[in-house]
Amino acid sequence: MDITLESPLDMHLHLREGDTLDLTVPLTADHFAGAVIMPNLVAPVDSLNNLRKYRQAIESYCHGKNFRPYMTLFFKNYSRQELEECREHILGIKLYPAGITTQSEAGVSDFSTIEKTLEDMQELNIPLLVHGESNGFVLDREREFLEVYRSLASRFPDLHIIMEHITTADTVQLLDEFDNLSATVTLHHLMITLDDVIGDLLRPDLFCKPVAKTPRDREALRQAVFSGHPKLMFGSDSAPHPRHKKECIGCAAGVFSAPVALPLLAQIFEDEGCLELLQGFVSANACRRYDISPPAKQILLTQSPWQVPHYYKNVSPFFAGQTLRWSINSSFS
Amino acid sequence: MDITLESPLDMHLHLREGDTLDLTVPLTADHFAGAVIMPNLVAPVDSLNNLRKYRQAIESYCHGKNFRPYMTLFFKNYSRQELEECREHILGIKLYPAGITTQSEAGVSDFSTIEKTLEDMQELNIPLLVHGESNGFVLDREREFLEVYRSLASRFPDLHIIMEHITTADTVQLLDEFDNLSATVTLHHLMITLDDVIGDLLRPDLFCKPVAKTPRDREALRQAVFSGHPKLMFGSDSAPHPRHKKECIGCAAGVFSAPVALPLLAQIFEDEGCLELLQGFVSANACRRYDISPPAKQILLTQSPWQVPHYYKNVSPFFAGQTLRWSINSSFS
Repeated sequence: MDITLESPLDMHLHLREGDTLDLTVPLTADHFAGAVIMPNLVAPVDSLNNLRKYRQAIESYCHGKNFRPYMTLFFKNYSRQELEECREHILGIKLYPAGITTQSEAGVSDFSTIEKTLEDMQELNIPLLVHGESNGFVLDREREFLEVYRSLASRFPDLHIIMEHITTADTVQLLDEFDNLSATVTLHHLMITLDDVIGDLLRPDLFCKPVAKTPRDREALRQAVFSGHPKLMFGSDSAPHPRHKKECIGCAAGVFSAPVALPLLAQIFEDEGCLELLQGFVSANACRRYDISPPAKQILLTQSPWQVPHYYKNVSPFFAGQTLRWSINSSFS
Repeated sequence: MDITLESPLDMHLHLREGDTLDLTVPLTADHFAGAVIMPNLVAPVDSLNNLRKYRQAIESYCHGKNFRPYMTLFFKNYSRQELEECREHILGIKLYPAGITTQSEAGVSDFSTIEKTLEDMQELNIPLLVHGESNGFVLDREREFLEVYRSLASRFPDLHIIMEHITTADTVQLLDEFDNLSATVTLHHLMITLDDVIGDLLRPDLFCKPVAKTPRDREALRQAVFSGHPKLMFGSDSAPHPRHKKECIGCAAGVFSAPVALPLLAQIFEDEGCLELLQGFVSANACRRYDISPPAKQILLTQSPWQVPHYYKNVSPFFAGQTLRWSINSSFS
């Protein structure tokens, strides 16, 4: 059996910068019609000038691939003029609480100081993408942040707020309380719990932020995604870290899932008997929620087993060394 | 200021075997008068013959150190005769649920099959040391095991049951419900929570079983220990793993705290203003609960800062590279 996916999108992706682009860009551009590019580089992407340079660097690695990088700015207090200038060049602005994940030191530490920027974003119809975690105890962070989501969603009812890489049952529930809330869900949070990370031997390759949660939380995510929830979009949060930053004391957070995302999604949707909902999760929901029209691109998946490499260059991917049932046969535009 | 500790004991210690003994035995024998030696070797210590060999191997590394290894057998269904023969050679028998931690594959999978051995142990006054975790979700394992403790404690009221390396507030509470329950507490569980392991960068050096829990759990442990709870004994659960088994995908569980245990205990007891309770925690409580008389040995701790090495051979210790306020000045018998 084959499946053809129309213009699949990865709505949350870390490509990083420099030489790493040579690894990350083609792997995603071969499989997707577009991806939302996170701005937390070593120097955050927080000006139109930096954003243009970053997009050009990315595009230099995807010639002929019919792939659109949807750029984002790193949230700070932008002037109205800056927002107006940036507007047509970005999909949205990504907000990080300060210090919450990789390269987020320049993030927001006081939410009372960002009202004006949020008002302007609402008026200019610029979506707000949010890494929603508090600075509390690691397992409470997403739950503790829900009140911030509630406050933002109610006070800026016309601001499209995307709760990124959600992981808990409570967050799934919140999604339905406000029309202006959407959410991305990663592949790995649909598959693993904290048990997989620390329950047996420790698995730094599965260590990510937000950390994987309980079986109950995973079940809530799965139920929502596998029932075709219209406000849930696939965002891999794929994040490459070289081996020496993963297999060490002080290991970086991030799961490198981009190369296996579509085949594994096909597998788990098939296992749940809902392959027909995959198109919505990997493209249609995002097109509708963001009102975007990605490049026309068809990805053909076939039921032909392949073994995931142990490493892509020096980065170990999700499901390294394991055999997947679905593989990507070809893409055509 | 100096403190002199009388015959400090480590009531839960992994020395491992082979060449590793050359590292582990002297580090503990220099600081302690005795230690309870865990039997989960690659081939479990489950016969008097193996136990004698293991004790001899250990003793070959502690000549002249006035140190007593308190040996334990790996729990299985022993005959009455075996128990009678072993009795004077062991402090107790250590029970592992099957597969719950390092080298525990030969552990117990069905508690209904071990009644006769427990009855004999009760009659022969042989303590039962227990790694109390279920096979459930990693954060629920200790809580789920409490019903086993309750059942054992009530049905074998004269069997001394030691709940090893306890980590949760619920377990602290259970301790007071049965006279025949005691517990060991590690140094690291008094100091870290899951936040330290996975809240920022991932710390495989702090990864252990049971995994560190919540701030509330740690607080319950600290309150009990720092108020001099008479049924709590120090057991480091120190477990050396070489660098290549810690800094890798599939990292082994265990914190190597033996070399820093007494100086750090002095530091945290001093910080809590209860240095006078340290003697009870590291020796007197264990002597009373187990009815043992360790070798007379005094350890002098002085307030003289020292920096913990980054590695002992190829094993990274707890607090590697950090400076401690207390150091061990000398030991004398």
